[in-house]
Amino acid sequence: MSNPIATYGFTAVPASASALLTSTPAYPSSSTKAEPIPVSATPIPSSELAQRINSYARSHLPEPTYNHSLRVYHFGLAIKRYRFAHADWDFSDETYFLACVLHDIGTTDENLQKTKMSFEFYGGFLALEVLQDGDGGAPQDQAESIAEAIIRHQDLCDVGKITALGQLLQLATIFDNTGAYADLVHPDTIKDVSEHFPRHAWSQCFASTIHRENGLKPWAHTTALGEEAFPAKVLANKLMEPFE
Amino acid sequence: MSNPIATYGFTAVPASASALLTSTPAYPSSSTKAEPIPVSATPIPSSELAQRINSYARSHLPEPTYNHSLRVYHFGLAIKRYRFAHADWDFSDETYFLACVLHDIGTTDENLQKTKMSFEFYGGFLALEVLQDGDGGAPQDQAESIAEAIIRHQDLCDVGKITALGQLLQLATIFDNTGAYADLVHPDTIKDVSEHFPRHAWSQCFASTIHRENGLKPWAHTTALGEEAFPAKVLANKLMEPFE
Repeated sequence: MSNPIATYGFTAVPASASALLTSTPAYPSSSTKAEPIPVSATPIPSSELAQRINSYARSHLPEPTYNHSLRVYHFGLAIKRYRFAHADWDFSDETYFLACVLHDIGTTDENLQKTKMSFEFYGGFLALEVLQDGDGGAPQDQAESIAEAIIRHQDLCDVGKITALGQLLQLATIFDNTGAYADLVHPDTIKDVSEHFPRHAWSQCFASTIHRENGLKPWAHTTALGEEAFPAKVLANKLMEPFE
Repeated sequence: MSNPIATYGFTAVPASASALLTSTPAYPSSSTKAEPIPVSATPIPSSELAQRINSYARSHLPEPTYNHSLRVYHFGLAIKRYRFAHADWDFSDETYFLACVLHDIGTTDENLQKTKMSFEFYGGFLALEVLQDGDGGAPQDQAESIAEAIIRHQDLCDVGKITALGQLLQLATIFDNTGAYADLVHPDTIKDVSEHFPRHAWSQCFASTIHRENGLKPWAHTTALGEEAFPAKVLANKLMEPFE
């Protein structure tokens, strides 16, 4: 692996989404609007590792959460293609896919009850193990980049840096969960992705998961997003309402 | 274990130190000043687990970092006794001690180079393993509370909750590292603790560790405290200057 920092998405970028979006012009120019990017243009990787982890996720995650994870994948690649077609963001689709399908692994019924740790932290730890398991396991660097992104995927900062992988995961999950950054994705892309991976009332689902996490673990890191404010934002997701 | 939430310090308290300090009166009254609490009044626990982890920390941490960890222990218990003598904070000294001696385990030369993950996250996972290792290992709940606190020990929030163990660890580390919250500890306590566990120019040491972490890992979570601002605060620690 000639450049693991780049390939696995470690490259440091601003942690603040607003600072990032004002400082990084869209490619080829900041006046360009997002174009439609169908699901077929952002295929999931065909590597053995991607297939193994995809099966793992599909068998462990409830369907609404799995579909959310796939929407985050397709939306994230659409965002990257439109807004961050720069060297800093040139990490592999495989790495991004693995982060997407594992980012909410801590929220399953089983895992919520298996640990008293915040779901992002337990999820990151679990991802590290699952990714490196067996002969075809992910290299340590790749597994660590994914774990780091999962641990920080609800760590919304105004200051400092984060991995490019982590920032894209944050942008795409916030986009799908709250409808923020609506201009980063073309409406036709939203429609196509949502038709392939239906929301099944995801807003209600996810708000309910937040309540469950904070209910079982009142100390959880999710509370840092606002114990009432965050579920309210999720339920007020107007952008995705037509697809609920 | 009749109440693991309380004993292991999971009880949720405000994550914002300023909100906490304005809302929680000192015991027995908010007009009471901190009294001197010598090191002899806050002995380290004598359990097998505490001794094993103490040896582990002493053999892995450079002396300045080990001494910092012990100062965090003694300062933390002094703070708790003065300001948080409430049921919510009634977790075991053993749990707090284990968190203290392991909180910076991710900053050793060896560990900084072993991982590309932020040191708090790698440290948390390492702590989970080391604590639960072998026959006399910590119960899962205790290990998880400590890991959670280590992962969040530089996660300074304005909103939401954190474990009581995590909040005390934050307060005591910030106190030792930057001299903030000076009124929480009597000057005689600072003197006695610093004489037992000399700083060996800790401010320079720690500022250098921050630079090392951010240099090796420009994406690291430590950058969220301010890439220049945080080391500057550490170097400007007037409270501890007499003991450097």
